[in-house]
Amino acid sequence: MTQATFYGIGVGPGDPELLTLKAARLIAQADVVAYPSTTWKESTARSIAQAHIQSHQTEYPIPLPMHADRTETEAIYTQAAQDIDHYLRDGRQVAFLCLGDPMLYGSFVYLYRRLHHQHRISIVPGINSFSAASAVSKIPLATLEQSLSLVAGSTPDPSLVDALNQHDTVIILKAGRHRHHIASLIGQAGRVQEAAYIEHASKPEQQIYHDITQLPDGPGTYFSLFLVARQS
Amino acid sequence: MTQATFYGIGVGPGDPELLTLKAARLIAQADVVAYPSTTWKESTARSIAQAHIQSHQTEYPIPLPMHADRTETEAIYTQAAQDIDHYLRDGRQVAFLCLGDPMLYGSFVYLYRRLHHQHRISIVPGINSFSAASAVSKIPLATLEQSLSLVAGSTPDPSLVDALNQHDTVIILKAGRHRHHIASLIGQAGRVQEAAYIEHASKPEQQIYHDITQLPDGPGTYFSLFLVARQS
Repeated sequence: MTQATFYGIGVGPGDPELLTLKAARLIAQADVVAYPSTTWKESTARSIAQAHIQSHQTEYPIPLPMHADRTETEAIYTQAAQDIDHYLRDGRQVAFLCLGDPMLYGSFVYLYRRLHHQHRISIVPGINSFSAASAVSKIPLATLEQSLSLVAGSTPDPSLVDALNQHDTVIILKAGRHRHHIASLIGQAGRVQEAAYIEHASKPEQQIYHDITQLPDGPGTYFSLFLVARQS
Repeated sequence: MTQATFYGIGVGPGDPELLTLKAARLIAQADVVAYPSTTWKESTARSIAQAHIQSHQTEYPIPLPMHADRTETEAIYTQAAQDIDHYLRDGRQVAFLCLGDPMLYGSFVYLYRRLHHQHRISIVPGINSFSAASAVSKIPLATLEQSLSLVAGSTPDPSLVDALNQHDTVIILKAGRHRHHIASLIGQAGRVQEAAYIEHASKPEQQIYHDITQLPDGPGTYFSLFLVARQS
């Protein structure tokens, strides 16, 4: 084990004030701040955290092409893990910024799996997009003994329908691309009245649709989800 | 609508540094700070947030008996909502502190339902206990297309077994009271190797059991959960 620590830091859903006190402190204290970015170096995670990034820190963007296949993505993570390994062996503390929570559908997990045998790891949980979506749409997620299921928007229809039939609350993440199809499945399950569609929760470009039969034509953003929740 | 706002504020799982910047700011700015407490006025939510509570603020503990029945609890929420309604009509900003996230199994929902027709409401999401448990146990919750289900520890056996059979990840909340029984169900589902049991994640009294066949005798605390997650 090296002495330096690799920090997986959740920066939350988009509002810079939804960073935790711990995330803000650890970002400011790191020697190297790493984050996923587009190939043209834009990074949502970085922009959320930028008030805490210091000019003397080394920044390390990890460019993840939008439509890379799995093999290509794995190669990018392997390269990034090697670079981060070098920083850590040099005794530099590395903070990796992750949208939402690092351990839930986060890119941090792929770096964690490559680095945790050799390096000390510390993880700072973040606010999930669905908690932000619930807060801004004012739709409670669950109470008491209600069950909740989280699925991806690309889940095959039968599994999505099963979830809608079996769970009091269903959260369908990354739903924008298939939003009209998913809205029709929610309709077939008889749960239109319980559903809302939210894009960019807590960001300035936030959109909330309480009537999912009125979604604009075409696909929506990647940063989008459906909440389907019994209100009793 | 009155001019004052009723804030539902998630204070997270226990570590005071896991408050968001927004929660810290809004708690410090409120006129009245309300929170659930025991009948002898102890409050975990208050103790997490206490660095941000100012001496000039009015504090309003809402005593929730540990073993109250549903009718008694409803009566307590109705009384609390009346008192909060009075504060708001006086033009005082009220912040209600909630463990974890206010909209997920939180007591805030019961106050929200009683107050949102007459008052402006603002909700600040909080870090969920399961995100903290995942961070401290270093068990990733889900990646890519994996599905995740959240259930309460008091869920009837058949539903719990269904969840264990159907979902890549199952989080069983408030599991302490039934922990040995739940551990045996996880064993019957063939998922002992994928499971961990965590109490008080992120608090000083935190306990992590990576081998759920080795749980101490007797029940565990209310602040406890099982994570069952495929690691692939």
